[in-house]
Amino acid sequence: MAPFAWSRERMSMNLRVVLVEPLYEGNVGSVARAMKNFGFEELVLVNPCSIEDFGLAMASHARDVLLAARRVCSLEEALEGANLVVGTTGKRLEEQQRHLRLHLRVPCLTPGGLARKLQGKEGTVALLLGSEDCGLTNDDLAICDLVVSIPTSMRYPIMNLSHAAAILFYELYGVEGGGVEMAHRESLLLLQDRFRSLLQEAGYPEHKVEFTQLMLRRVLGRAELTEREARTLLGVIKNIRWRMDSCESGPSPQDPE
Amino acid sequence: MAPFAWSRERMSMNLRVVLVEPLYEGNVGSVARAMKNFGFEELVLVNPCSIEDFGLAMASHARDVLLAARRVCSLEEALEGANLVVGTTGKRLEEQQRHLRLHLRVPCLTPGGLARKLQGKEGTVALLLGSEDCGLTNDDLAICDLVVSIPTSMRYPIMNLSHAAAILFYELYGVEGGGVEMAHRESLLLLQDRFRSLLQEAGYPEHKVEFTQLMLRRVLGRAELTEREARTLLGVIKNIRWRMDSCESGPSPQDPE
Repeated sequence: MAPFAWSRERMSMNLRVVLVEPLYEGNVGSVARAMKNFGFEELVLVNPCSIEDFGLAMASHARDVLLAARRVCSLEEALEGANLVVGTTGKRLEEQQRHLRLHLRVPCLTPGGLARKLQGKEGTVALLLGSEDCGLTNDDLAICDLVVSIPTSMRYPIMNLSHAAAILFYELYGVEGGGVEMAHRESLLLLQDRFRSLLQEAGYPEHKVEFTQLMLRRVLGRAELTEREARTLLGVIKNIRWRMDSCESGPSPQDPE
Repeated sequence: MAPFAWSRERMSMNLRVVLVEPLYEGNVGSVARAMKNFGFEELVLVNPCSIEDFGLAMASHARDVLLAARRVCSLEEALEGANLVVGTTGKRLEEQQRHLRLHLRVPCLTPGGLARKLQGKEGTVALLLGSEDCGLTNDDLAICDLVVSIPTSMRYPIMNLSHAAAILFYELYGVEGGGVEMAHRESLLLLQDRFRSLLQEAGYPEHKVEFTQLMLRRVLGRAELTEREARTLLGVIKNIRWRMDSCESGPSPQDPE
């Protein structure tokens, strides 16, 4: 297709594209090309297929993006330093049904809805795309703050990986960064860890802890927590735990009876 | 990518995808796949490359769309029966500058803008995508009622053909048909023909006729003419021409002096 000359460079949030165990080098190259078409540069590959001449050919003038891609061995490594983790899936209905039974609400957005949500935010958004054969696993999706899905025809919903990526980049290209600093991933992980401890110390049924934690992650994902809010919540939990601890060790001198 | 199960079949306008002289069978197959992902089926190929195993492999489960594609030798043949012809281009800026000198306003829409424009309309929309090396020619674009362009990064605006197609299908998937019958292409062509005759009979400078006609096509494209409106305009032109003709042959008996 001829050059799309109606272009401008914009300040946008930093998008990190994470391909989880991609199987075909042609797709990896095509994703790199689509990234550069929309001004995105940070590509991370988790245990990728080997990338040789065909992958580079498909990247076309985005060889630089492909060659600069960081290769890692685990998803956790790929997500270091990210403020928000967004998973992509086509399992929406299925997943929703599974989660509905568990009383969890999965915030599954359209690409346009995701773009609107990120408008005005500052930070690094990791966008996860799964392998060509089965997409992201449920374990992968469980660590995502948000989940995005492209509405397609029921008759043939299985999209090519790079087509799905191009549509997401197209929508995210319009997003302009702003002054609202998203919570750091480290703060969110700490919050989850402290929340788990709080549940355990409060005698919350052990078999419900994991699901309640996942629910919290979804709620916080939808809430688009800022760093300041995350720190405040950490303070609240610390206070509650301290209070519970002092109650258990008997009334403290300053407690009125 | 895993199946996008968040799907529904919707009533939509009929989209005819026209690939003009595509060079690579892989791209043709990929476009067919993306069409089926978004529920579109009518594919027309104008003087295409030969399509063999690789093209069919890229079409994946949309082999049926690819195998049913109509092959034609001219763009005119591809457009028969279409109500609206939409060209795709990346030459927006360049073209606009060229046309500004000619006092023409090119209605270059974003994919989202095109979708909004087609909402509630009834009829066949032919979406033209040019060859991979240079896109649609200026002559191809001149016969389009509307032109659409995808906003991209300035640093690398050249998109893969099937990526551009997938983004357009994604936007057009949301369009629901309605009761507003778009003017038939035949009526629009007749209108252009009659308008040209009118200009000539009115003594309009011959060297301006072509550009004024192109301007009319753009204006009517933007106006989203219905069939009824097209017929009314044909009636108006007929009336004016008849009147001019009778004036030239001297005052008719029923004309008051």
